Amino acid sequence: MVRNKLAAGLKKIYPAGRILTGTLEKKMYSYDSSFYARFRDFIPDAVVLPRSTAEVSATMKLASEHGIPVVPRGAGSGETCGCLAVRGGIVLDFSSWDDVEEVDPENMQVFARPGVVHYQLNEHLADFGLFFPPDPGSTRMCTIGGMVANNSSGLRAVKYGTTEQYVLGLEVVLPDGRIIETGGVNCRALKNVSGLNLTKLFVGSEGILGVITMVRLRVWPRPKARGLAMAVFTDLEAAPAAVLDVYQSGILPSGIEILDSSAIHAVNLYNPAINLPEAEAILIFEVDGNPAGVTWEGEKIVEITKKRASRVEWSTEPGRMAELWRGRSVVAVAAARLRPDGSRIFAGEDISVPLSKVTEALRRIKELGRQHEITVVNYGHIGDGNIHTAPVINLDNPEEVARANALVDAIHRLAIELGGSTTGEHGVGAVRNQYAADEHGRAADIMKQIKETLDPENIMNPGKLLPPGEAGKSV
Amino acid sequence: MVRNKLAAGLKKIYPAGRILTGTLEKKMYSYDSSFYARFRDFIPDAVVLPRSTAEVSATMKLASEHGIPVVPRGAGSGETCGCLAVRGGIVLDFSSWDDVEEVDPENMQVFARPGVVHYQLNEHLADFGLFFPPDPGSTRMCTIGGMVANNSSGLRAVKYGTTEQYVLGLEVVLPDGRIIETGGVNCRALKNVSGLNLTKLFVGSEGILGVITMVRLRVWPRPKARGLAMAVFTDLEAAPAAVLDVYQSGILPSGIEILDSSAIHAVNLYNPAINLPEAEAILIFEVDGNPAGVTWEGEKIVEITKKRASRVEWSTEPGRMAELWRGRSVVAVAAARLRPDGSRIFAGEDISVPLSKVTEALRRIKELGRQHEITVVNYGHIGDGNIHTAPVINLDNPEEVARANALVDAIHRLAIELGGSTTGEHGVGAVRNQYAADEHGRAADIMKQIKETLDPENIMNPGKLLPPGEAGKSV
Repeated sequence: MVRNKLAAGLKKIYPAGRILTGTLEKKMYSYDSSFYARFRDFIPDAVVLPRSTAEVSATMKLASEHGIPVVPRGAGSGETCGCLAVRGGIVLDFSSWDDVEEVDPENMQVFARPGVVHYQLNEHLADFGLFFPPDPGSTRMCTIGGMVANNSSGLRAVKYGTTEQYVLGLEVVLPDGRIIETGGVNCRALKNVSGLNLTKLFVGSEGILGVITMVRLRVWPRPKARGLAMAVFTDLEAAPAAVLDVYQSGILPSGIEILDSSAIHAVNLYNPAINLPEAEAILIFEVDGNPAGVTWEGEKIVEITKKRASRVEWSTEPGRMAELWRGRSVVAVAAARLRPDGSRIFAGEDISVPLSKVTEALRRIKELGRQHEITVVNYGHIGDGNIHTAPVINLDNPEEVARANALVDAIHRLAIELGGSTTGEHGVGAVRNQYAADEHGRAADIMKQIKETLDPENIMNPGKLLPPGEAGKSV
Repeated sequence: MVRNKLAAGLKKIYPAGRILTGTLEKKMYSYDSSFYARFRDFIPDAVVLPRSTAEVSATMKLASEHGIPVVPRGAGSGETCGCLAVRGGIVLDFSSWDDVEEVDPENMQVFARPGVVHYQLNEHLADFGLFFPPDPGSTRMCTIGGMVANNSSGLRAVKYGTTEQYVLGLEVVLPDGRIIETGGVNCRALKNVSGLNLTKLFVGSEGILGVITMVRLRVWPRPKARGLAMAVFTDLEAAPAAVLDVYQSGILPSGIEILDSSAIHAVNLYNPAINLPEAEAILIFEVDGNPAGVTWEGEKIVEITKKRASRVEWSTEPGRMAELWRGRSVVAVAAARLRPDGSRIFAGEDISVPLSKVTEALRRIKELGRQHEITVVNYGHIGDGNIHTAPVINLDNPEEVARANALVDAIHRLAIELGGSTTGEHGVGAVRNQYAADEHGRAADIMKQIKETLDPENIMNPGKLLPPGEAGKSV
């Protein structure tokens, strides 16, 4: 009955080609890039492809009238089931609404619709000597709407921060269909402290408060130069200590990445030609800025890290930089090849810990791997304590899957125990909300209150981000 | 009756020396640094000086029980009556709760109580080679609690952003006395995307949602070098064009300040020894970073701005930098001396406009000054479009005060017309909330909904930030 009304209502809003209701079509929307989606069957009732704010608003009015869940979706590159219809309903697939509406170089900003893919946005900006600094690994897939909804970042967050830092304003359709502009109506100022900061409340809200239909981003002048240093360590502790030495010298690199022994081993097995030095850890520092400054910082990084590293190399030569980066660039793929029947799973994959706890975290994750008899490969953004853990398992072996789930739970709990978070980058979605009460304590109640105020019927991406159940009828 | 209960209740929470109820004592709390406070008489019922979260929580419980307004106050350096008891009630004076609880250099963060003064915080951090980049003009007065509540910034925001960018977490006492930690309970991670971003919702909320009792800030390595360039322009348009040229060359200065002809004139009258070149505009670029990079950027800035400027000078020599900076540093004081009976008023003093509208804004503010027969001096953070306008009037002349109010209203409306905001730095308080509906449209309704959810009795700093009246009983 509701389903019939839904179909009829959607037909009034969208042309036939932009409503998908076939069984196979809908099945395609039951996946994101996570481990978890494989084992569940989150089939939406309908999928629509909006291309205007009016369409989104009409959809929300229809949905709120009938109490139907609505789930916004970008590229489906997420790792937390965040864009899956865990309670059925309508998926809004924004991948075809991918207009860069305007680059405004004079005002250092850009206006983009939610479906614009990250690297395409930066290609547009490059024509103006500008760039949007956050740099997720999924740049060729992920959409700007998804990046804003998840407050995405990547390897440059250490210097450039996360997506939120660049969002000046949003157009948002609320659960009841109302349309608001955050950050000021028609505002193009770079600074604005008028009013409550709704922009930043919506950034990272994972679609539970409303639907993002336009993003206004501050962008920056593209740096002219770049350099890479690789430092090799025979002691694991020496790596985070070297990171701190570099910070204390007054240098803020644009990226500081780590491969631990598990990752080095995986890379060398995957492609012996890369031939990374066998060691406890390899650090890669990226520095950007003006040519003279980059050279100065590179030389300084070599001088500083030499004190703890067994070997350091620095280059600003593009070919050599690509070689130095090669190990880091293949590690995610390499992990999957550690065993012939293995898959690298995205689960427990982006915990964040205090810098002072990185060594302990890496050691204990290895130990947890041994306890659960699962190979884990560790790498990540050590400069901000964000560790990518890659468990490698046989997905067809239910007993191994069960062990992986136990391992991942232990990794998440370890992050909280060490004063960190279950997620530094990929968000909560439907897979980490079980930890939300532990992570946030009573603040989680306030999150629920805000959700209930903006979405009293709980139709906006229900079952995500907030702790499940107990408090509040609708969350 | 309520007042008696209030006095009795406060005595149970605070020792005698930290409750102020004398008429003169309370009168001292009827001022901030704004023009507006002079003409109103916002006397609180009581002032208390909390020094623990438990005291604040007990105060909020007492206040909510009796429906008494509570107004947090830092140094009173604000310009918007934001810390004044516009509806009476209790002022929480945090100036004596000024402990830097911990500098954690390994994790690049600091924990501070709300009353810590900005420059004192940076003095603590300097011992560790760290700094908190936002740099308000009121550094020797303003408190970190006030900076967070107002999302303060200053002349370095162009490169380093505003306070919000550095706030990793807060301890907040809610209107009903509940205590929450935002950004994760016991979290010391630099990256955390778990949960709704309550931290950023409270930053800039001007005390209307809760009381900030602890601030956890990310801090950065202190740059090793600094340089200043001064460029003189005979055409006003050439100044913002030169700013854009610099950005387009890939340089992001740590500050870009403008003095227009009115400010140059004021400075030279105030102190002829400073002897600024008479011109339509002077730009001062500050660059920071490593020594080699600073020199490179300085030379580049000279090369670029020379094309439009009549004169450019660059220095990294501390004595000469102080001289180049001298005009900018005295302009606020110099404005007040333009006439013997004059005072520079802080009203309409921090509008923010798109970079592309800076020239038009400066011209039209001058024209508005002529129309209203009031001298105005313009300077400010041109790098992010944030203009400081200083009207100079005789405060004892009611007719002039009335004209100043009309001028300031026109300046605020001009900012909105140009796609900017009535406030880039100092906030809304009780003086710009009349523009909130125009600035935010329907988004203002959502701000009200959030306020009503967290503070249903409207006791938290009432009469501030939100549009007055019409919607919602309590706001």
